[in-house]
Amino acid sequence: MKTINIGFLGCGGIGCGVWQLLRQMEVEIARREGLIIHVKRILVRDVGKKREADIPRELLTTDAHAVIDDPDISVLLEFMGGEQPALDYLCRALESGKTVVTANKMAVALGWHRLFAAAGAGGAGLYFEAAVCAAIPIIRTLMSSLSGNRVDTLMGIVNGTTNYILSQMDESGRAYGEVLAEAQALGLAEPDPASDVDGHDAAYKLSVLSSLAFHARVPYEAVHREGIGQVAALDVAFAKDLGYTLKLLAIAKREGADVDVRVHPTLVPSKHPLASVHGAFNAVFLHGNASGDMMLYGRGAGSAPTAGAVVGDLLFAARQTRHSIPGFEHRADLPPNLRLEDNWRCAFYLRFEALNQPGVLGHIATRLGEHRVSIEAVVQRHTEGNERVPIVILTHQAREKDVKAALGALDPAVAQVKGLLRIEGQGS
Amino acid sequence: MKTINIGFLGCGGIGCGVWQLLRQMEVEIARREGLIIHVKRILVRDVGKKREADIPRELLTTDAHAVIDDPDISVLLEFMGGEQPALDYLCRALESGKTVVTANKMAVALGWHRLFAAAGAGGAGLYFEAAVCAAIPIIRTLMSSLSGNRVDTLMGIVNGTTNYILSQMDESGRAYGEVLAEAQALGLAEPDPASDVDGHDAAYKLSVLSSLAFHARVPYEAVHREGIGQVAALDVAFAKDLGYTLKLLAIAKREGADVDVRVHPTLVPSKHPLASVHGAFNAVFLHGNASGDMMLYGRGAGSAPTAGAVVGDLLFAARQTRHSIPGFEHRADLPPNLRLEDNWRCAFYLRFEALNQPGVLGHIATRLGEHRVSIEAVVQRHTEGNERVPIVILTHQAREKDVKAALGALDPAVAQVKGLLRIEGQGS
Repeated sequence: MKTINIGFLGCGGIGCGVWQLLRQMEVEIARREGLIIHVKRILVRDVGKKREADIPRELLTTDAHAVIDDPDISVLLEFMGGEQPALDYLCRALESGKTVVTANKMAVALGWHRLFAAAGAGGAGLYFEAAVCAAIPIIRTLMSSLSGNRVDTLMGIVNGTTNYILSQMDESGRAYGEVLAEAQALGLAEPDPASDVDGHDAAYKLSVLSSLAFHARVPYEAVHREGIGQVAALDVAFAKDLGYTLKLLAIAKREGADVDVRVHPTLVPSKHPLASVHGAFNAVFLHGNASGDMMLYGRGAGSAPTAGAVVGDLLFAARQTRHSIPGFEHRADLPPNLRLEDNWRCAFYLRFEALNQPGVLGHIATRLGEHRVSIEAVVQRHTEGNERVPIVILTHQAREKDVKAALGALDPAVAQVKGLLRIEGQGS
Repeated sequence: MKTINIGFLGCGGIGCGVWQLLRQMEVEIARREGLIIHVKRILVRDVGKKREADIPRELLTTDAHAVIDDPDISVLLEFMGGEQPALDYLCRALESGKTVVTANKMAVALGWHRLFAAAGAGGAGLYFEAAVCAAIPIIRTLMSSLSGNRVDTLMGIVNGTTNYILSQMDESGRAYGEVLAEAQALGLAEPDPASDVDGHDAAYKLSVLSSLAFHARVPYEAVHREGIGQVAALDVAFAKDLGYTLKLLAIAKREGADVDVRVHPTLVPSKHPLASVHGAFNAVFLHGNASGDMMLYGRGAGSAPTAGAVVGDLLFAARQTRHSIPGFEHRADLPPNLRLEDNWRCAFYLRFEALNQPGVLGHIATRLGEHRVSIEAVVQRHTEGNERVPIVILTHQAREKDVKAALGALDPAVAQVKGLLRIEGQGS
């Protein structure tokens, strides 16, 4: 029987979840892995705070040094969240040879180079399955299972709050503001929801996922980001009628050397596997040159699902005699063989408010055609008497900048674009 | 740059797929992993046979010794299939310290103890992601990602042929025999389809998956197995009307110390994630005490998806300095803490052919009640003039043996059971 001493950095909901899971699995882990996991020290902000788990007071300390630099502790689990001071703590631990298991997406996304360099210098293990999509084993899948594949598409529903809001809007036809307020009242959205609804959370996760998928660090700042705040209930309804479901997708695509990474509200065909991922569930859809289409689905948040991922990493780390860092270019952003493309190609949903008179559709279609945007479908509802009416156009695959240029060339007195949504997943 | 010499055992569709993928990924693997993979020798039955890949003739040999015992070869990839001679070859290789990557579900399911013992004796790595569900990373997920969880439910669509047949029956309402014949004509089912349609293939896979899920070897012989040959088009249609979809599921459940493992046609609610897994796709649905519900979805067969899993294992193995065997009881079948339960609990769909007269439903319901089987729903279509009519009953959760006993107690002159299907996944 082998004993490993571990320390916690932070002890909120996830830390308490890990504590409870370790207690619950203690006998099984000992029998199965021949391993006793001993939590020696826990860094907290406030020793006196009431916690969800029954943790002995004497383990708690507000002194980071007492945890990070304890020579008896060989593995640190981090649940502090946020970039700093977590990142500095993790680097210090890694450099001194301590293995790190972290649930902190911001530290991993923003501190990528520092963390891998520190792990390499200290010969330590760096594990972060819990940092992205909690229970979904997407990190290990990308690092190990798919290492024999070239991944060309990754599309994820990686934020439960926005997925809940969009699912509600889709089911009930209600407006964004109303559903958001209800989600806040239910505790499903934060009082300040910006991190979720503006797509920051998804963009951190996409930075990590796309870096692993492309074996090349894709920085957070490179992710094109649009939130769900501008989504109109009218567009959700039109899209539904046309056989599409609206999701906030984190998308990473590669075509030859061109890579595009973006988070934005996206229409997916209602039969696409991502369309039936509802509420707080997350899913990551992938396409590899050998694997073809695949999808991983599960709980992307919550203290128990996250704790399961943390303990999984901890047990994996304990089995290693030497920690391997999977091969990828982590010395610089965007390696020489890849190029960030901001003029991506996809299909578009366009809703216009147009004059209710003959020739208007011709005006719009001509401007689109002049910019190499071809039309797949038009939905026009003539309403007698109304001066302006909605026209919805679905395009074939087109370049982002061509579409924007075509829309810019419209005569605003004739037609104005009121809704623009990108469409993905049509081929699957 | 490190070079590893590998050998192939077998070179049919999968072997050729691996050869092609290794060529395709050669530059990327070298850059990313600092690794050159050199295929030194390939064991085949017939050197002169035409192959899908352009493999130099001088690599091929019919002499197993020349591949298995070549001291330059450190990793063997096996695609021979079948229990023997593959199992003997793999054990010999492992004992001599050669790492094995195999796509052979029968060798893994039937040779479990021998393979793990040989790997332990030789200090060699044993990897078999490709042996179950091809591109779906279910082996690594169970062994590593979920090691911090106690898995209590695993339900898989693990056979593409039967899933194709059942999907077709569901869509078109046609009978089993007709759809099977069509699948055979299309090359989607074997001329002798027994391995697929009788559930043998699924049972081998379930033996492997449940052994990993429960950290205890569950032998193939312990799997209760029923094929799809008895499924009536009428039951598929009734189930569809009631909101269920028919799938051949490989099911492993654990309740306390009781474990049940079974392959049989199963109804799942049409909104369950497994219900929308169509055609040749596979999926494994899991529930863990920490993770909650999750599902992995992808291509479960085919030379490219399988090759991707093989190369993923090969690269993972190449990164290891010492191969770890995840902790589980592999010394005996069914460890002391688990008990195989053949009297499982689930809901049932029962279709009776009954006399078209008053009191018949009372007779059936009374017999069920006497055996602790309670009824959730009854569908009875009275058809004037017919002597016998169908009655469909959905039960609440009940014990298998109670249901069988209740059916045995029916008066056959009054009502006979003509269709029995188990229902799973109602809670999810």
